[in-house]
Amino acid sequence: MEKVLTYIQMNQDRFLEELKEFLCIPSISNNAENKKDVLRCAHFVVDQLRQVGMQQVQLFPTPGHPIIYGEWLGAPGESTVLFYGHYDVQPVDPLDLWVSAPFEPTIRNGEIYARGSADDKGQVLMNLKGVEAHLQAKGHLPVNVKFLIEGEEEVGSANLDNFIGAHKELLQADVVLISDTPMFDRGIPSICYGLRGLVYFQIDLRGSNSDLHSGSFGGVVINPNFALAQMICALKDSEGRVQIPGFYDDVVPMSAEEKEELVRLPFDEEKYRQDLGAPALFGEKGYGVLEQIWVRPTLEVNGVCGGFIGEGAKTVIPAKAMAKISMRLVPNQDPEKIASLFERYIRQIAPAAVELTVTRMHGGKAWVASIDHPAIQAASRAFEKGFGRRPVFVREGGSIPVVATFAELLGIPSVLMGIGLPDENAHAPNEKLDLFNFRQGIVSSAYFFDEMKK
Amino acid sequence: MEKVLTYIQMNQDRFLEELKEFLCIPSISNNAENKKDVLRCAHFVVDQLRQVGMQQVQLFPTPGHPIIYGEWLGAPGESTVLFYGHYDVQPVDPLDLWVSAPFEPTIRNGEIYARGSADDKGQVLMNLKGVEAHLQAKGHLPVNVKFLIEGEEEVGSANLDNFIGAHKELLQADVVLISDTPMFDRGIPSICYGLRGLVYFQIDLRGSNSDLHSGSFGGVVINPNFALAQMICALKDSEGRVQIPGFYDDVVPMSAEEKEELVRLPFDEEKYRQDLGAPALFGEKGYGVLEQIWVRPTLEVNGVCGGFIGEGAKTVIPAKAMAKISMRLVPNQDPEKIASLFERYIRQIAPAAVELTVTRMHGGKAWVASIDHPAIQAASRAFEKGFGRRPVFVREGGSIPVVATFAELLGIPSVLMGIGLPDENAHAPNEKLDLFNFRQGIVSSAYFFDEMKK
Repeated sequence: MEKVLTYIQMNQDRFLEELKEFLCIPSISNNAENKKDVLRCAHFVVDQLRQVGMQQVQLFPTPGHPIIYGEWLGAPGESTVLFYGHYDVQPVDPLDLWVSAPFEPTIRNGEIYARGSADDKGQVLMNLKGVEAHLQAKGHLPVNVKFLIEGEEEVGSANLDNFIGAHKELLQADVVLISDTPMFDRGIPSICYGLRGLVYFQIDLRGSNSDLHSGSFGGVVINPNFALAQMICALKDSEGRVQIPGFYDDVVPMSAEEKEELVRLPFDEEKYRQDLGAPALFGEKGYGVLEQIWVRPTLEVNGVCGGFIGEGAKTVIPAKAMAKISMRLVPNQDPEKIASLFERYIRQIAPAAVELTVTRMHGGKAWVASIDHPAIQAASRAFEKGFGRRPVFVREGGSIPVVATFAELLGIPSVLMGIGLPDENAHAPNEKLDLFNFRQGIVSSAYFFDEMKK
Repeated sequence: MEKVLTYIQMNQDRFLEELKEFLCIPSISNNAENKKDVLRCAHFVVDQLRQVGMQQVQLFPTPGHPIIYGEWLGAPGESTVLFYGHYDVQPVDPLDLWVSAPFEPTIRNGEIYARGSADDKGQVLMNLKGVEAHLQAKGHLPVNVKFLIEGEEEVGSANLDNFIGAHKELLQADVVLISDTPMFDRGIPSICYGLRGLVYFQIDLRGSNSDLHSGSFGGVVINPNFALAQMICALKDSEGRVQIPGFYDDVVPMSAEEKEELVRLPFDEEKYRQDLGAPALFGEKGYGVLEQIWVRPTLEVNGVCGGFIGEGAKTVIPAKAMAKISMRLVPNQDPEKIASLFERYIRQIAPAAVELTVTRMHGGKAWVASIDHPAIQAASRAFEKGFGRRPVFVREGGSIPVVATFAELLGIPSVLMGIGLPDENAHAPNEKLDLFNFRQGIVSSAYFFDEMKK
């Protein structure tokens, strides 16, 4: 590994420049206006794959954004690692809260600020560079490697399942490697063995044909803003417990062993609260913060809008109001079942004086793995060598639906080696990636391929 | 009056052209970007006043938008009528719901569609033309006339009270004439003798420093969208009754006579519902529609906003949420008292896990007049001559705070002779004015000055 490590050391500055180049491309997948940028970003990934020494590099068009594939299969008899990542990013609004522009990567205090820095471009590039180090320093990899990098992760990976189903042989591997999760805390490498699933809806209410003067009509028609508030309140009680009948039926309690592991983690609730800048924490009674995030499902109102929201005052009763509502699911909860329960309940609680439209959006199953799996153990050793500390095993409250897809369609387990941080601001303004983690992440990635050798 | 009526008949086409010119100016008073347009509109009004023959025409700058004054005092010994109106208009969003552009006046089916057509430019011009008809056809008016036309009615007339207070002598008159109210129904001229008052607030909630990933943090922090929904629900029960302690304490019940008058009005609840395009009507139990609008106070959520409201799905817990909340008050409710009750209650119901900011915006007192007043009786005869039908006496659910101001500061009663229609879409997309009403409104205005002669 010495040659590999030296190569990484010698090429750090260039790696950083390439990261900046990657982050400059506004590959926002949910915005039609950015379609060309997303395509440009796909080509950047193609060029990177070729440059690091991957073969059979292909851009597969889809009805949405392209999927990129590349492979290096020069280690017969060895395991095959399939790396999965994404080159698309979240939207950037509210733009005015960004300290530096989201697509002008800026380094402050050893961290690089840009949309996509942590989620997931930085972590994709880190693994590309781990592969490059082997191939360029030694001419070969210890194992076979395949790359699958998509451009629709932030909008629900609508075309990925089809692609995987249609390319089962191409994608066959022993393990999937994903780097899209945060560390438990700065300096504590973490391997994620559980993820929450997701069900996402938009609901639209209509109370009248057009906006009404609140003087002339106030008191006699329903106000969709008020109806919406009532419906939102009926979804969750004031202590944070979801009120949809049957919502918790399939939730599996944490095992005693898991609880013990969880208690050992260095978690400071007060510091956590302060980092969030929250006046107080708020969650389902009877569960600690980590349990609330890792093993309890939740329902969140991701957006609401209705009526006049500009500067000043407008005396209007809006014709319409809208909410985006999503649920985070835990292992054993079926997204289809939960979606049906939600839809039945939301129709039941809608006042008769409004017209309700329910639109289901993307989602995915929750996932949990066994810590004893050889690939997870290989990842553990690689992280220890890269960061000088044994990793902790954690769950994550977010969703990476493709993890469930790989298990179901290809029968392959996933290893989640992420190097983000809890304050990385993924999906929020001022997203950032720690550059120390980026460098040691490249080292850890290179070690992982080495540790996977039989 | 024959010469006057002939003049009106002969000049109708020009009056319509001038109305279009007036409506083309986007004088949106709540938008800083339109400041120059508002000023341009003020100068249009100045030119009109001069053109119709008013004297001492002046534009008074204010810290906001200018106030325009003009007078004709050539009838010594006769009464003085002070006309009050406004040349500013409401914002136009949502713009995509307008059939024709809001500042490109378009005639469809005998109605002119444009922002400000009914509220209040059309009705201001109607009275200007009533005066013009007398002055141009006969060289004099039957009574003394003053015009006071402001540019901040839609943003709470912030500088009007000061102006009136500082110009009490200039504005002294026997009666204020205002045309800013709708008819009870098409073909039924209506004189408004009661208005609701207004108290308007914006509330802002903050739950954390920045938007959070709903996967990573869902279940452990308060969601300001949810907190806002809870607070909105606590303001009003599901039957529409306001829950603020003391809110109804000073409400005076309708008199038996008023109730009898009200029942006689040709009101069709089902047609009313259909016109609104509402799936059902919804209001405080125990009161009919007209009572709910005229003599019952109400609370409305004029706008809500929080989190991701764009196209698609974004899994975010917003840092902030906002609501614009206003209350319509009835006579004998004191806006200051109600504002205090609201503020105390909203602070009480805010969850501890959010930071609350309460901002009070414009407002005004409710008002009610005696139908027997000689000026109201003169207006009644004028309307009967203009529209061929005795007017009905109605109340209006909206607010014209200046009516209370004139009573308090100058001790002058107001006469509300409006020619809008219930479906005029004031404050909403597709605002319109019936051109028959515009023409007969000019005739009625001319008659009103005649009827006010001693």
